[in-house]
Amino acid sequence: MSAKATATEYHPVTPTSSAPPSPLADGGLRVVALGGIGEVGRNMTVFEHADRLLIVDCGVLFPEDDAPGVDLILPDFAAIENRLDDIDALVLTHGHEDHIGAVPFLLRLRPDLPVVGSKFTLALLAAKCREHRLDPVLVEVAEGQRSKHGAFELEFFAVNHSIPDALAVAIRTPAGVVLHTGDIKLDQLPLDNRLTDLAGFSRLGDEGVDLFLVDSTNAEVPGFVTPEREIGPVLDRVIGKATQRVIVACFASHVHRVQQVLDVAEAHGRKVCFVGRSMVRNMGIANDLGMLRVPDGLLVDLDEALAMPEHMVAFVSTGSQGEPLSALSRMARGEHKQIHIRAGDTVVLASSLIPGNETAVFGVVNGLVRLGANVVHQGHAKVHVSGHASAGELLYLYNAVRPSNVMPVHGEWRHLRANAELARLTGVPADRVVIAEDGVVVDLVDGIAAIAGRFEVGHVYVDGLSVGDVGESTLSDRLVLGEGGFIAITVAVEASTGRAVSSPTISGRGFSDDPKALDDVVPLVEMELARTEAEGITETHRIAQAVRRVVGRWVAETYRRRPMIVPNVLPVGS
Amino acid sequence: MSAKATATEYHPVTPTSSAPPSPLADGGLRVVALGGIGEVGRNMTVFEHADRLLIVDCGVLFPEDDAPGVDLILPDFAAIENRLDDIDALVLTHGHEDHIGAVPFLLRLRPDLPVVGSKFTLALLAAKCREHRLDPVLVEVAEGQRSKHGAFELEFFAVNHSIPDALAVAIRTPAGVVLHTGDIKLDQLPLDNRLTDLAGFSRLGDEGVDLFLVDSTNAEVPGFVTPEREIGPVLDRVIGKATQRVIVACFASHVHRVQQVLDVAEAHGRKVCFVGRSMVRNMGIANDLGMLRVPDGLLVDLDEALAMPEHMVAFVSTGSQGEPLSALSRMARGEHKQIHIRAGDTVVLASSLIPGNETAVFGVVNGLVRLGANVVHQGHAKVHVSGHASAGELLYLYNAVRPSNVMPVHGEWRHLRANAELARLTGVPADRVVIAEDGVVVDLVDGIAAIAGRFEVGHVYVDGLSVGDVGESTLSDRLVLGEGGFIAITVAVEASTGRAVSSPTISGRGFSDDPKALDDVVPLVEMELARTEAEGITETHRIAQAVRRVVGRWVAETYRRRPMIVPNVLPVGS
Repeated sequence: MSAKATATEYHPVTPTSSAPPSPLADGGLRVVALGGIGEVGRNMTVFEHADRLLIVDCGVLFPEDDAPGVDLILPDFAAIENRLDDIDALVLTHGHEDHIGAVPFLLRLRPDLPVVGSKFTLALLAAKCREHRLDPVLVEVAEGQRSKHGAFELEFFAVNHSIPDALAVAIRTPAGVVLHTGDIKLDQLPLDNRLTDLAGFSRLGDEGVDLFLVDSTNAEVPGFVTPEREIGPVLDRVIGKATQRVIVACFASHVHRVQQVLDVAEAHGRKVCFVGRSMVRNMGIANDLGMLRVPDGLLVDLDEALAMPEHMVAFVSTGSQGEPLSALSRMARGEHKQIHIRAGDTVVLASSLIPGNETAVFGVVNGLVRLGANVVHQGHAKVHVSGHASAGELLYLYNAVRPSNVMPVHGEWRHLRANAELARLTGVPADRVVIAEDGVVVDLVDGIAAIAGRFEVGHVYVDGLSVGDVGESTLSDRLVLGEGGFIAITVAVEASTGRAVSSPTISGRGFSDDPKALDDVVPLVEMELARTEAEGITETHRIAQAVRRVVGRWVAETYRRRPMIVPNVLPVGS
Repeated sequence: MSAKATATEYHPVTPTSSAPPSPLADGGLRVVALGGIGEVGRNMTVFEHADRLLIVDCGVLFPEDDAPGVDLILPDFAAIENRLDDIDALVLTHGHEDHIGAVPFLLRLRPDLPVVGSKFTLALLAAKCREHRLDPVLVEVAEGQRSKHGAFELEFFAVNHSIPDALAVAIRTPAGVVLHTGDIKLDQLPLDNRLTDLAGFSRLGDEGVDLFLVDSTNAEVPGFVTPEREIGPVLDRVIGKATQRVIVACFASHVHRVQQVLDVAEAHGRKVCFVGRSMVRNMGIANDLGMLRVPDGLLVDLDEALAMPEHMVAFVSTGSQGEPLSALSRMARGEHKQIHIRAGDTVVLASSLIPGNETAVFGVVNGLVRLGANVVHQGHAKVHVSGHASAGELLYLYNAVRPSNVMPVHGEWRHLRANAELARLTGVPADRVVIAEDGVVVDLVDGIAAIAGRFEVGHVYVDGLSVGDVGESTLSDRLVLGEGGFIAITVAVEASTGRAVSSPTISGRGFSDDPKALDDVVPLVEMELARTEAEGITETHRIAQAVRRVVGRWVAETYRRRPMIVPNVLPVGS
């Protein structure tokens, strides 16, 4: 149990079995992430004490290549769906989609669940809920405040992130004090002067933090994140020398980034036009709440902007991740109806490049460059800084909080491990650093955190209007179809004899552009049908199986491909 | 024509029309890239003079998400397929797949085409041709040599790249002197002491270079590439402190990288085991040609390696790009039959992260970290350097060669534009820098390079055993199927009346895991069939169209999804 091991034997506690959780000891606190550990997104952590539950965050994950066609991935609520009435509150640390995006789906199950968060977070949530025709119970809190929800006493701390009004939350129960950072960084010169409350964390550390849940996103990155305000002068140089159209793309919730664009635009005599539904909506909210300073007359709408000389307006747009339907992508393809990029225009991608989006983003960059635009992005110029603490900042956090137990959250395995190592370097014993995964149960009992089993946690997919009906089997079919298409063989057989009453119809989609590609299949299938008939096989599923087998073998030998083979055997007559 | 424009008006010449090429002026030289401009891969440039052709490189492109299921993308030979006998030679600058991978496909069309290249390049090509059962005509050359092939006089220059024995080629015709860098960097302390021949380029510059084709890959990256030999000490630290298993993954053709692993392994008393078919093959070739120094007894095969204590062997493996079937990916998933990663093992990714592969590579990293491995990659440690000149090196090249005209090659638009800007900064007039695209015709006439039209150039896809039958229509079907699956509706109708003789069969794949998802479709289709019958519609394609329409509308309204709708209407009876 003690740290007698040599350096290379320092390993954090990791899950080793998939046994169901053992009962929670009396007086203990249970922690289970239903999302956000082992992945970047759909953050959701459930705390249990004295048979009551508290949830921190409820976000979505945006799908990658392994979930084609899916719009969103939700946390799996299965572990709590029989205990909905035990939930005392849902706490939201900030308003990003990966922290609030799944709230409407949880509220459908429990409409009266109190949702606790800061002013800006709740305003974004309220807008989202209106789209879902939901009317949530909102409990507004602010940094420095405390609140009590059933079994849980909460205290909120200001934290700095890439969205205003983010909070960390301390959770007090008789089992001990837990501190959850949410998403966090430690900009020491934040644009709104709202510092991450390291002093508050230190006071909590004096009191004793039994379990510290820490944002792992940038734990692999050495050093410190550059202050947000250093972007301003870079934008000033780029926009200052532009003589034509200027378009700045960034995240629609990054109020401080947009503020800097507004300030620079104003300084250079340009009006500003917001482009993109979420940009218009969020900046409206930020303006209403006094979080965005918009000089009178600075904003113009798209029609006004298009009527002005190009050098007198700056567009602030969504689409920084290469989303194919976004305005920016349409401009890059030359398909935007109103904004036509021409040689000498300036486009700034004042945004991160989220892993997995590289191809899409560089596709947009290439399209814009091809049209002659001068494209400025973080690869060349300091037009973006991360919202997540780098390793240097995380060390400050650990040294302020001095936790007894640590649980890295928000990240893939590589991030979690790097964060665990930082905890260890600041003196947390390796066996008090617990790396969990989604569904892994961590119990804090008598001041010691340990893994106590695992809930089955799946991915819940949203595709179009429905939730959950697209599952692993559908996705695996999509992957096969997307790689190789299908070959369908339709044949009508006499129900009583299994005799083919028509020639088989063969059609392929996603298989070949050659209209003759499948010409050899018909005689092959006819031979097989003659064989099944001769053997007296009348069951359509057995005929279909035989057809699938001969066609699958033929296509593998002839083309070395693996399309889906879809036999339709149709019984007709009596 | 002169450089009187202001700074922001400096624009290189770019293609503006898709007009077919005008005839080449007498005595002129024509340059057409059939691949490699506007993309990274399938490099192939065709030179024409006095009705004769010379080809430089003939590589493949590895497909991205927009070409699902495709194995390789070839250059489009359409522009030369009627002129195969006019080709005097194919010159290969080096042995990477994006420069030699499509040679077998060209040799199938013209088996006796002389293939000119360096010793190592031709050895890799010969191995490839053996797999394709081809016996090419090989013409070995080396740096400093000259050769003549029909209308073209060639001179070869040593260049440094991430594979040994790479060459640049100068092409002399009465139209002028052209210099093509191939892939190039300017490591000033190369591991094999074979410098890029900047002195030779300077001599050629004294003579006068009329057109300079320059590798654009890293033109956006400021500064200089770190020398390859600085990786050695890093590997030494990483492998030196390892107490368990060590696996180093890198490209199978990167002989110098592997050499450094061998040297470090030897220094630390570890034997070396090559893992992966191409690694074993290429290192065998390099060893045979004296390009890899392998101490006697250093290499062991897999069985020997597995029988040895873990700290006495290092594995050198393929799979550095996260290829799902590679040994490394199988280890990361815990599915490798013989090599089981355990906590404390060391894995080094001594390789680049090719854009588009991020998700796959980080998937492998996360899998290895989850198993407890210590994973070292270029994000943390200097275990990789690029094979392509950064901007600083490209400036040296331009200043040595002092070309009259410049044509950036090898890159996406963003790279080409950055390279054009470097040419301009060294004094090449903007209107003498020609950015082409695949198929764009650049004619050098009277010392001036200009765009003279465009050939239609498509993508030629290899999928399994066949070439070219998978085209844009098949790929577009695969994209639809991969996103939304399909719903097939099969119905038998009496041929004479159009009356349904069976209940419709509905099946969906890749649509939903819910077995009842399509229950509402049958009555809908039955109603529609009653309608078509009542209207006297008997043509199966019209019935199919009607069915497709009602089902498509239903699924859009009910699910807001867009699966492929596949009606099969089967006429039966007389």
